Amino acid sequence: MQPSILATPAESTRFVLLNTSHGGNVGAAARAMKVMGFADLVLVQPRFADVLTQPDTLAMASGAVDVLEGARIVPSLAEALDGITWACATAMTPRDFGPPTVAPRDHLAQLAQGTQRVAFVFGAERTGMANADVYRCHVCLSIPTHPDYGSLNLAQAVQVLAYEWRQALGGFGVQPRTTDARRADARAVEGLLAHWQQVLQDIGFLDPAAPKKLMPRLNQLLNRAELSTEEVHILRGMARAVADSAKPEGSD
Amino acid sequence: MQPSILATPAESTRFVLLNTSHGGNVGAAARAMKVMGFADLVLVQPRFADVLTQPDTLAMASGAVDVLEGARIVPSLAEALDGITWACATAMTPRDFGPPTVAPRDHLAQLAQGTQRVAFVFGAERTGMANADVYRCHVCLSIPTHPDYGSLNLAQAVQVLAYEWRQALGGFGVQPRTTDARRADARAVEGLLAHWQQVLQDIGFLDPAAPKKLMPRLNQLLNRAELSTEEVHILRGMARAVADSAKPEGSD
Repeated sequence: MQPSILATPAESTRFVLLNTSHGGNVGAAARAMKVMGFADLVLVQPRFADVLTQPDTLAMASGAVDVLEGARIVPSLAEALDGITWACATAMTPRDFGPPTVAPRDHLAQLAQGTQRVAFVFGAERTGMANADVYRCHVCLSIPTHPDYGSLNLAQAVQVLAYEWRQALGGFGVQPRTTDARRADARAVEGLLAHWQQVLQDIGFLDPAAPKKLMPRLNQLLNRAELSTEEVHILRGMARAVADSAKPEGSD
Repeated sequence: MQPSILATPAESTRFVLLNTSHGGNVGAAARAMKVMGFADLVLVQPRFADVLTQPDTLAMASGAVDVLEGARIVPSLAEALDGITWACATAMTPRDFGPPTVAPRDHLAQLAQGTQRVAFVFGAERTGMANADVYRCHVCLSIPTHPDYGSLNLAQAVQVLAYEWRQALGGFGVQPRTTDARRADARAVEGLLAHWQQVLQDIGFLDPAAPKKLMPRLNQLLNRAELSTEEVHILRGMARAVADSAKPEGSD
């Protein structure tokens, strides 16, 4: 499945894993790609030829087994880059020379404006990328990490770059996990405050002769809380209950 | 180790894992935090009481065992949020009500401008966050993912949010993985082109009477390549070698 010229940048984006040792990382990488809408996975000389079907791989892929099923295994990076016009290396170890090192966010924002067919290339877990493979790439992406401990797990590096690239391509929408509340308007909040003011006077907490700043303070608090209409009902219900419970002890 | 009021936002940032089942996820979360410069990890009722010292946990933590050693185990989210003023839930399942759902990038950019002591709260691998725990939080962060498959692995969700929060806080610098090349200036490129022009005439590739657009095309190519001074030397050396190898067959 070579990406055609007409493929979208997302469809033509490839993730290339070099000499990967652990099936769990391959599975987790597949999952990391799929949640960000990418599907083209190529392995270059993995340590185990059956890595795509190992139990660890399948377990970590979770619902992304289809990405594993579509993945290809090839003998060299040169072959893995077939159809790719812009290869991004991810390399930790300093080299004597090579493509420029850039931060993912800035670079991917630029890349998203163009028409390159992009690959992200990841080295083996312990040894990273060989110099010869870095030289095949157009740029070296460096995820900005703590200067004293910057080593991301392979699948997590895949996740961060898949996320950044998806964001650069426009991103998916945020799916609301909670129903949006209908906000109470200022008039409803005013009515609520008036209700509580009366109750607080009735139970002797608020002295109308010396109200100090109590009501303005409560007003500010409620504004900050951005009440929903339902919450206004709840708070008025509480005010009524306070008033009811106070009656037997009241003076009238 | 409670964060003091004077702690930096990074120092006071806490990662809370609820009811985690897999040691590997706890270890990978610790590593994900540490590469982004965070260290305060709290577990609420993990499935296994010894999860912080299990072999899987230590293996996945790699160089972040110190984060595990400093981690605390507490019986409830309420206790885990001691000292926290802004708790960010991460929740996949829609709820009838709860804090507003927001995208991490926008929200964390705002949060970084303030002085909140922030916690990120992650639910159990399979069941996510209980409603009661979501209600304790101020906001619900939703990592924007593919609408049809949006389920991030726990440790990878930790990695994305740790990365986004670090970026929002100002980020670490990109560490160059390759030495910056000294760029050749336009005069050097001009000299190189003149050199090749002569050689190409000498070997009969370029006809001075009908040069077409060859030299301007090569000029554009070299400009795009942004040559280093060393590369100019290499290309002039190649031109000399071409000229030398052509001499025996030449007419003079």
